[in-house]
Amino acid sequence: MTDRFLAILENARTASVELARTSTTVKNAALNAVAAALIANSDRIVAANADDLARGKSNGLDDGLLDRLRLSPARVTSLADAVRDIIALPDPIGEVLRGSTLPNGLQLSQVRVPFGVVGAIYEARPNVTVDLAAILIKSGNVAVLRGGSAAESSNAVLVDVIGDALEASGLPRAAVQSIDEFGRDGAQRLMNARGYVDVLVPRGSAALISAVVSDSSVPVIETGAGVVHIFLDESADLDMANDIVHNAKTQRVGVCNALEALLVHRDAAERLLPEILARLDESGVTIHADDRTHAIFPKSVSATEADWGHEYLSMDLAVKIVDSLDDAIEHIRRYSTHHTDSIITNDMANAERFLADVDSAVVMVNASSRFTDGGEFGFGAEVGISTQKLHARGPMGLPELTSTKWIVRGNGQWRR
Amino acid sequence: MTDRFLAILENARTASVELARTSTTVKNAALNAVAAALIANSDRIVAANADDLARGKSNGLDDGLLDRLRLSPARVTSLADAVRDIIALPDPIGEVLRGSTLPNGLQLSQVRVPFGVVGAIYEARPNVTVDLAAILIKSGNVAVLRGGSAAESSNAVLVDVIGDALEASGLPRAAVQSIDEFGRDGAQRLMNARGYVDVLVPRGSAALISAVVSDSSVPVIETGAGVVHIFLDESADLDMANDIVHNAKTQRVGVCNALEALLVHRDAAERLLPEILARLDESGVTIHADDRTHAIFPKSVSATEADWGHEYLSMDLAVKIVDSLDDAIEHIRRYSTHHTDSIITNDMANAERFLADVDSAVVMVNASSRFTDGGEFGFGAEVGISTQKLHARGPMGLPELTSTKWIVRGNGQWRR
Repeated sequence: MTDRFLAILENARTASVELARTSTTVKNAALNAVAAALIANSDRIVAANADDLARGKSNGLDDGLLDRLRLSPARVTSLADAVRDIIALPDPIGEVLRGSTLPNGLQLSQVRVPFGVVGAIYEARPNVTVDLAAILIKSGNVAVLRGGSAAESSNAVLVDVIGDALEASGLPRAAVQSIDEFGRDGAQRLMNARGYVDVLVPRGSAALISAVVSDSSVPVIETGAGVVHIFLDESADLDMANDIVHNAKTQRVGVCNALEALLVHRDAAERLLPEILARLDESGVTIHADDRTHAIFPKSVSATEADWGHEYLSMDLAVKIVDSLDDAIEHIRRYSTHHTDSIITNDMANAERFLADVDSAVVMVNASSRFTDGGEFGFGAEVGISTQKLHARGPMGLPELTSTKWIVRGNGQWRR
Repeated sequence: MTDRFLAILENARTASVELARTSTTVKNAALNAVAAALIANSDRIVAANADDLARGKSNGLDDGLLDRLRLSPARVTSLADAVRDIIALPDPIGEVLRGSTLPNGLQLSQVRVPFGVVGAIYEARPNVTVDLAAILIKSGNVAVLRGGSAAESSNAVLVDVIGDALEASGLPRAAVQSIDEFGRDGAQRLMNARGYVDVLVPRGSAALISAVVSDSSVPVIETGAGVVHIFLDESADLDMANDIVHNAKTQRVGVCNALEALLVHRDAAERLLPEILARLDESGVTIHADDRTHAIFPKSVSATEADWGHEYLSMDLAVKIVDSLDDAIEHIRRYSTHHTDSIITNDMANAERFLADVDSAVVMVNASSRFTDGGEFGFGAEVGISTQKLHARGPMGLPELTSTKWIVRGNGQWRR
């Protein structure tokens, strides 16, 4: 087993050299071949997925998980479409970011290069296998994927289909490999494969990400949970606040940019909360209210300390009345995961205070937190939203999956 | 002990809010006050350092380590000068890196912000205490420093002097704190202080850095060892090769950008090696030669497998004859730490092949590896040279000690 695992890593390393020098044209042709191969192998993919679904059912997976695991012919077509979308995005590799000519004549340029080998650990979503493969091919990287045992049959076929398409396009099959066969042990090894794996991207639950972050000696790009706050300042417009809060909470509840906690200035609470909370309630949102909010909106349940900083990912909302902008900022500092936090206000000075002092990946004025998204930001591909401060912060596009190197051209210079 | 350690981290967190919004003018005034305070307290600093030196001697520290530990009045003046140099550098904070207006009217901008709290772990070099404090203040960050027991007295006084100067400038004393009093346990806790420490910067030996990388759950910026290669291509000019190799190996041996391994194309070996190796030998360099090199230059010692990929940091050089450019690239891929690698050639195509295929932080043509340096690159401050691919790669200046955040300004937008 050791030998085969090591062989996968070594093949990935070797393939990464070739991917790094592959032209945009060839990468795009390969992605086109991958999309076509997914469609051509739709029956085979759906059949393998049926095995995973049957095993999942007998293992008692709940309906939500089974749905995320499912690949219908229509979903395979969507996967192929997503691959084709990536073809249209600009190739980040080779971009010159900075440059100068030093007084001694040395010519410096900093150019974008692929990371090399990118490991990914995720759970039970076979669509992520295709997404990541396509995004990594486009950015000149090689993928080593650990997709989780629940989707093992689906992933095996997907990686095989992708590999055939890559080979047919003249690229190494090892550009996209799976280590699912090694189970949990494989994930552990991937996390410690320094020298083989350049960067690790965990995607999935907060528990998964936190385990990878604490166990990995390979550098990790963390895509984190979103305990998103909106603060309604004293001067907030009722209609604007109402539309934004309703949208941020209810448009889609299971996502990291959905609203989880609403803070309201005490001098605006009576004016704003009744209408806003009634509309949420009508839409089926349970309000977890602090005492002062509960007095204004008795249909709420009482919030406990556990509600602050909690990522519901459901039709629940924590609501608190605060005494000032400062208190709102302090509450966010303490409980936010610093993904996205927004203020609704008509006061310029308060808007600027909030933007400056709230240290989150995305800070907003008078906008719904649902806009924190690679697609909405115009990045095209969705690689996740980084909540760490190193390397990339906020929505990540293709350039965030690259590194740089310095190229120095001289004509015999040595240092005096 | 727990309480006091936690209090330090909490004070750092609080101070980071203030540092993040401190203007360039105030930060520069504080740095000026720090420089003046170092000079004014020179006697006190030198006296504390004498305690460390006496303890070091009785603990049997070697002369090299004692020298790095020593602070004379002249060295204190140099430290103050280095702080003043940082005043002149541009403030990275607030720089707008990207921006756009989305079709729905949302205005996006990505601005540079401080990391927040930066932890540093280093060894027995009190000058690093001052360097890091000044660089971190300038970049709006707060420092939590673990400088090692050998320099404990010096560091305590330096941090105290810096703290007085910060307070006199209206900045929080907690912007620069030491955790030396907690010993090794403090270092361990710092590495796991997620939520308090945003980034950790280890500076020192390869062993120290590797320990921090493997033990830390806080994101690390790795500044790595340099096993630097120069490849003399078939077409290399003798005089150019001679000057560059001599400079890269001998100008300063104990640094990460010094040459450690010389590769030579077999068809150029007889033409190039005798003169180049004789000059190195005259300068006191021991040549660790492969068999073919040894045949050309018998004054060499025989290299063993351990010589390839070894960072000597001394007057030693591994020399190997390779059969082709491909073999040189393959050798570098296998043994380089991917810090800096250089080719000496007159062949355009080979130069471009080398630049494209050698995946190191800095790749050079016809230049000495000694130029890989923040100062030489024109960055001003020397924060170290990153050999990892995440966040920063190559020489790091002030901007590499920052993160970014997205600011989104709307007028009521919500997502359809």
